[in-house]
Amino acid sequence: MTAASSSVAERIAALQTRIKELKVAKQDATAEVDEMKALKEQLGKDKKSGSGFQLKTPKGTVDHRPEATLLRKKIFHTLESIFVKYGASTIDTPVFELREILAGKYGEDSKLIYDLQDQGGELCSLRYDLTVPFARYLAMNGITSMKRYHIGKVYRRDQPVVTKGRMREFFQCDFDIAGVYDSMVPDAEVLSFLCDALTALDIGEFTVKMNHRKILDGIFELAGVPQDKTRSISSAVDKLDKMSWADVRKEMTVDKGLDPVIADKIGEYVGLKGPGWDVLKKLEADEKLMGIESAKAGLADMRLLFEYLEVFGVLDKMSFDMSLARGLDYYTGLIYEAITEFSAPPSARPTPSVPAPDAMTSSTPTSLPAKADKKAKSSDKDKAKTEDDAVDEASVGVGSIAAGGRYDNLVGMFAEAAGQKRDQVPCVGISIGVERVYSIMEMRRKNREEKIRGKETDVYVLALGGGLLKERMAFAKMLRDNGIKTEFMYKAKPKAPAQWKAADDDHVPIVAILAPAELESGTVRIKQQVGKDAAGEENKGVEVKVEEAVAYIKQRL
Amino acid sequence: MTAASSSVAERIAALQTRIKELKVAKQDATAEVDEMKALKEQLGKDKKSGSGFQLKTPKGTVDHRPEATLLRKKIFHTLESIFVKYGASTIDTPVFELREILAGKYGEDSKLIYDLQDQGGELCSLRYDLTVPFARYLAMNGITSMKRYHIGKVYRRDQPVVTKGRMREFFQCDFDIAGVYDSMVPDAEVLSFLCDALTALDIGEFTVKMNHRKILDGIFELAGVPQDKTRSISSAVDKLDKMSWADVRKEMTVDKGLDPVIADKIGEYVGLKGPGWDVLKKLEADEKLMGIESAKAGLADMRLLFEYLEVFGVLDKMSFDMSLARGLDYYTGLIYEAITEFSAPPSARPTPSVPAPDAMTSSTPTSLPAKADKKAKSSDKDKAKTEDDAVDEASVGVGSIAAGGRYDNLVGMFAEAAGQKRDQVPCVGISIGVERVYSIMEMRRKNREEKIRGKETDVYVLALGGGLLKERMAFAKMLRDNGIKTEFMYKAKPKAPAQWKAADDDHVPIVAILAPAELESGTVRIKQQVGKDAAGEENKGVEVKVEEAVAYIKQRL
Repeated sequence: MTAASSSVAERIAALQTRIKELKVAKQDATAEVDEMKALKEQLGKDKKSGSGFQLKTPKGTVDHRPEATLLRKKIFHTLESIFVKYGASTIDTPVFELREILAGKYGEDSKLIYDLQDQGGELCSLRYDLTVPFARYLAMNGITSMKRYHIGKVYRRDQPVVTKGRMREFFQCDFDIAGVYDSMVPDAEVLSFLCDALTALDIGEFTVKMNHRKILDGIFELAGVPQDKTRSISSAVDKLDKMSWADVRKEMTVDKGLDPVIADKIGEYVGLKGPGWDVLKKLEADEKLMGIESAKAGLADMRLLFEYLEVFGVLDKMSFDMSLARGLDYYTGLIYEAITEFSAPPSARPTPSVPAPDAMTSSTPTSLPAKADKKAKSSDKDKAKTEDDAVDEASVGVGSIAAGGRYDNLVGMFAEAAGQKRDQVPCVGISIGVERVYSIMEMRRKNREEKIRGKETDVYVLALGGGLLKERMAFAKMLRDNGIKTEFMYKAKPKAPAQWKAADDDHVPIVAILAPAELESGTVRIKQQVGKDAAGEENKGVEVKVEEAVAYIKQRL
Repeated sequence: MTAASSSVAERIAALQTRIKELKVAKQDATAEVDEMKALKEQLGKDKKSGSGFQLKTPKGTVDHRPEATLLRKKIFHTLESIFVKYGASTIDTPVFELREILAGKYGEDSKLIYDLQDQGGELCSLRYDLTVPFARYLAMNGITSMKRYHIGKVYRRDQPVVTKGRMREFFQCDFDIAGVYDSMVPDAEVLSFLCDALTALDIGEFTVKMNHRKILDGIFELAGVPQDKTRSISSAVDKLDKMSWADVRKEMTVDKGLDPVIADKIGEYVGLKGPGWDVLKKLEADEKLMGIESAKAGLADMRLLFEYLEVFGVLDKMSFDMSLARGLDYYTGLIYEAITEFSAPPSARPTPSVPAPDAMTSSTPTSLPAKADKKAKSSDKDKAKTEDDAVDEASVGVGSIAAGGRYDNLVGMFAEAAGQKRDQVPCVGISIGVERVYSIMEMRRKNREEKIRGKETDVYVLALGGGLLKERMAFAKMLRDNGIKTEFMYKAKPKAPAQWKAADDDHVPIVAILAPAELESGTVRIKQQVGKDAAGEENKGVEVKVEEAVAYIKQRL
């Protein structure tokens, strides 16, 4: 044990050196910090006990207790009822995929993928999202159109922040439309679904920020961003919701070597946001931008989209936000992200200073309501986080609660990689962050001081005198056979107070009291524990014939 | 690529030698055979294409298509409605656990556990069942009593047999009762639940085989089995449902070195099975057996259990079967396993010759109905399988559809390993094999030629003339806002036949037809596609005012 401990200590020292190096070089040290922490923990355990056996769940995972599991089921049920209204079907894919299926899909975040150990046979990894498995499913089965939803767990070796619901294992709830359709119609459907879903969930007001990759590309082209810097500059822009423009500009010019003149040109655009038509009209009036092919195409898409969103009555929920870029590699068109008032930190933070570009001074501060504006600044992306980020974010809100966009090439990439000749299958979709929705619902429930039950037992059958085990069994069976959720104590001769306490602990609304004398005359006593009739019966209950008990109880439930 | 291919070929050759050695030594070669197959496949792919990219799911896993996913949801829904009637709450645990949590729980089957790769941090494995995570949950949280159900996927690197629903990733559906209660009351509850659940599922007649570890131990003690051979002899007995007594006896004496006299003594008991009271009375009349402490205690448990099962009205579903032993290490008392007519192979097989021991000649052939008897012989356990087993079983039925038993020490093992001083938390539970239930339901549905829908869209909104995209959108939105599952084509100007075909392909029951002239006068045409009214309207549908369409459609659904 001593030898093992000392080798652990050596490894920790080596890691500390390495982390310092990485930080100096401004590179990501997540994996190293992670390993170091685990080793330190192990070292501590080794010192404390000889066994080192830890009774816990793996880092970044939790058990969901009954109340939490029930609330999650409720969320799924709500979402499913809306999925099916939109004509979606559902599929279920394996929790792990061949490793090569996930390769090259997640950019920098690929390092967060969980691999399965090579135990002979194929190399596999846990799925990182539900989108890539969907694209693989379509390509593998040659399916060219499908509307599907999928609720399932995904896995990311990210730095967990339990307080804001960021875990290594978490549920995602995806809705995607695949197929060759007319421009922006499926996109409008997905956004209409999103608004219906967020309205149905009990999470308060929300805003959907949206942008278009082609417009961003056009702005970069207009500003003169070199082709090979497009992705990294795009990811710098994406940080505008939690960094000031000055810091983002510094990242572009100092860290990423962008010409400051180009950075300032970008700065003229990315501060722009507001109601769809307002922002669109400003951009359409910008002749230089309209001269760029991709920007023009992107703006035409947005115009069509806004028309459709007006028909669906949800355009007022949208904010056209030029700072939204989204991290993932596979998006090709429209991108969006939903935030709520809970996406922001609990305490108000100073608004980062976003530049007010000459050309559109008026738009930035006035175009969005002040409250929504504040929200937008501190929302959070589902992206790789460094240790420092994680510490910082523990004090902010839950971040964005849904995100997605159009990805027209992903299915084709699979077909091509497998050597199949097939047309592209364009897709657009949304992923709802169930854990974040859960955090918000839980918070709201706590504020309302709602009583939360882990199970929903209707009737507790208890005996006063004599135990009456078989009689309680038979009575419980009769109730259960009639669909009534029934419980009794698994003791031959339980004490009365223990039975009453069990019924109270579970907040069971009705108690059925069996007693020898009453049973002999064919009756039981039914007592309402909660609700309007609970007090009115002077706590004695009502004597009911055994054969009428089911009907009587059903009427009371 | 050539170098890689030749090293693969070398590895295959080495494996072939090793497999031969293992087979000669009568040892398990599953892992080796598995690896060899994967390598052969890889070699073939390498030769065919340069990329080697495979568009597939990992071995032993499948995508569940919409129809299959919906049917599974139905199964879960049925089971959940019964779980809650029995007062169970539900929890959700991570799909992987710390590796040491699973260690030492599964006997020989531990080699089937999937490990996650060591990427720095903790060593983890995918869960193998839902029982060990439940026990860990109880121990970790110091919970001493709980009734919980859990539906989730579990993972086993077993030899997959797709035809009989044995996969490497599959759903389990567990119900367990933890806590110190009076003898056999929770056990009776679990069995009553099991019968309710199997009755509610659409799987035909079933039988629950049961036995008691203490009775088996008593028989082994009486026969003179050395203490260190108890588990291996027990696992030989467990094979009586698919091997003849002669073969099992041979395994005991030749492979496992048991004295043939002892084996024959065991043989006098293990052929015994039949209705609970019949078998129990025979065993209670056996003075030698009753002289063994553990046997006597086990038989007292069974007597109490049968009394309770009579109260619950399910005793007639039970078969007290002395050949049932169950493979897992952690069982300590009552054990059971449910089989159906579909557990047996499609074609009848010759009944294996079970010995009719002198002392109870009459019981073996007459005690169970002939049909149930045949079933029992070929049911299958969720245990490690060798390659040969797998080939053989592809032609048999789905095997047992539920299994479980009492495990009184598992929770305490965790508490103890973690250095906690706690009392034992006795548990009893059942695991339902959802995939096998699914196979049976699917088979029965196919036999009945039922039409299966992958989604349940109520209304298809189509346009005749002019495209009317925004009008279709607005109409669809109105229906959806009123809870009606609605679909339309995502084209600006879709052709009529394409729209009709889409509605037909999804078996949508109602079509709403928008046409320019009718819309101008404020009406749409509603046409019933299926059901009794479909033909009566001469295929033209009924003209309805737009504002009355929701009410009209709701009435028709």
